[in-house]
Amino acid sequence: MAELCVSSVLVTGANRGLGLGLIQHFLRLPKPPQWIFATCRDPKGQRARNLASKHPNLVIIGLEVANPASIKAAAAKVEEYLGGSGLNLLINNAGMLKAKTLEDETLEDMREVYTTNTVGPLLMGQAFLPLLKKAAQGSPGSGLSCSKAAIINMSSIGGSIASSYGWEMMPNPSYRCSKAALNMLSRCQSLAYKEHGILCVALHPGWVQTDMGSYAGHTPPVTVDDSVQGMLKVLSSLSEKDTGAFLDWEGNVVPW
Amino acid sequence: MAELCVSSVLVTGANRGLGLGLIQHFLRLPKPPQWIFATCRDPKGQRARNLASKHPNLVIIGLEVANPASIKAAAAKVEEYLGGSGLNLLINNAGMLKAKTLEDETLEDMREVYTTNTVGPLLMGQAFLPLLKKAAQGSPGSGLSCSKAAIINMSSIGGSIASSYGWEMMPNPSYRCSKAALNMLSRCQSLAYKEHGILCVALHPGWVQTDMGSYAGHTPPVTVDDSVQGMLKVLSSLSEKDTGAFLDWEGNVVPW
Repeated sequence: MAELCVSSVLVTGANRGLGLGLIQHFLRLPKPPQWIFATCRDPKGQRARNLASKHPNLVIIGLEVANPASIKAAAAKVEEYLGGSGLNLLINNAGMLKAKTLEDETLEDMREVYTTNTVGPLLMGQAFLPLLKKAAQGSPGSGLSCSKAAIINMSSIGGSIASSYGWEMMPNPSYRCSKAALNMLSRCQSLAYKEHGILCVALHPGWVQTDMGSYAGHTPPVTVDDSVQGMLKVLSSLSEKDTGAFLDWEGNVVPW
Repeated sequence: MAELCVSSVLVTGANRGLGLGLIQHFLRLPKPPQWIFATCRDPKGQRARNLASKHPNLVIIGLEVANPASIKAAAAKVEEYLGGSGLNLLINNAGMLKAKTLEDETLEDMREVYTTNTVGPLLMGQAFLPLLKKAAQGSPGSGLSCSKAAIINMSSIGGSIASSYGWEMMPNPSYRCSKAALNMLSRCQSLAYKEHGILCVALHPGWVQTDMGSYAGHTPPVTVDDSVQGMLKVLSSLSEKDTGAFLDWEGNVVPW
């Protein structure tokens, strides 16, 4: 299996959990990206900032995925750093979960979770499309791949309508609905952006030992390291036939 | 095939299109419901009102599905009419579509469409749950059926992630995402409400000759009459094994 090899990558929600894990693994690649853009709601986020002080190729950028103006400002900064090059990989990792049952969901929670988990990745795709297109145009070959240009949406098996995975323990309808919608968005992006040479997939990272995964006293089975290592291996193997798919961190297809 | 036989039904978005068609067909059944509650955003809606002047079992109620207070007020009115009986059938038909491409979707449109198409049916289920439970408890037999108690969510094949039906002609990501999320909600409702004796399904009504279906100069192949007749036939045949399913107006399973 070839190692993932990209010139530039952007990861949202990068100050903790899977986002931070992704950044750490990108820094440790045999051939690390020239630019790693780590975005966080609070750009003072200490964990990402500590890493950046040691790695000049890591840039921390403030970005709130539920705020179109914040996204546009971040895209302009990224463009400046790239100085005429494109962005190879956009990883829409930022997400939120509210531990709820069907009976205590509210209009406000439903909208808030949807805005962050579904609308955010749509707006990110729109704002970074010119840079992704540029990366695709500047890469050799005709197929699709992550080393060329790709959007990776961090979904969840919780968004699998067919599986109803973990319903009894974790109903969370606002989260499940937002992730099913994100899977649909991934599919829409794959259809719309294929002609621009951009691959799009939804990934289930496993049930991971993060703040989100460990809520309500659960102990998830997968470590951040194993999840991230698995996902990067999956990303390195993706090709044209995979665009629009929903895959887990081990490369298995997850049912819609 | 037995005719659908229910004592009470509520249909949202009942002043036009499929909602109005459903009301008309319920009125024409050999054994029409004792109470048909037709809700519309504007309770002065003339078409439903004309019907109500001729049918004392048809009650028009103002209801905005994106407004929790409006839903609660409507539920209180319905409870009063039912005078101690339950509600057999809740048909979440109200919905909206914004003709958009992936590039011109906005945060506001994404949220508005989601609120009406997905959050509305969630809030309706919450508010009418006591009346649906009451209907289930008051009905003989142990299985699930529409004549006992059911929530029917008007979905669309546009919400089928697997099919990508009609993408080239009708991308509409906000609509597709909201309907995929509605399918997930139906699944959640089926899991949460099964123990209360309530059947839940998502229905694709076909591509129907309504204002929504005919947007942008398209001519849909299915008439309102054919769609509604088909759906009522499907509803009459539903049993426990169907709860949580996504079916079309001819009874075929639609892929998630």
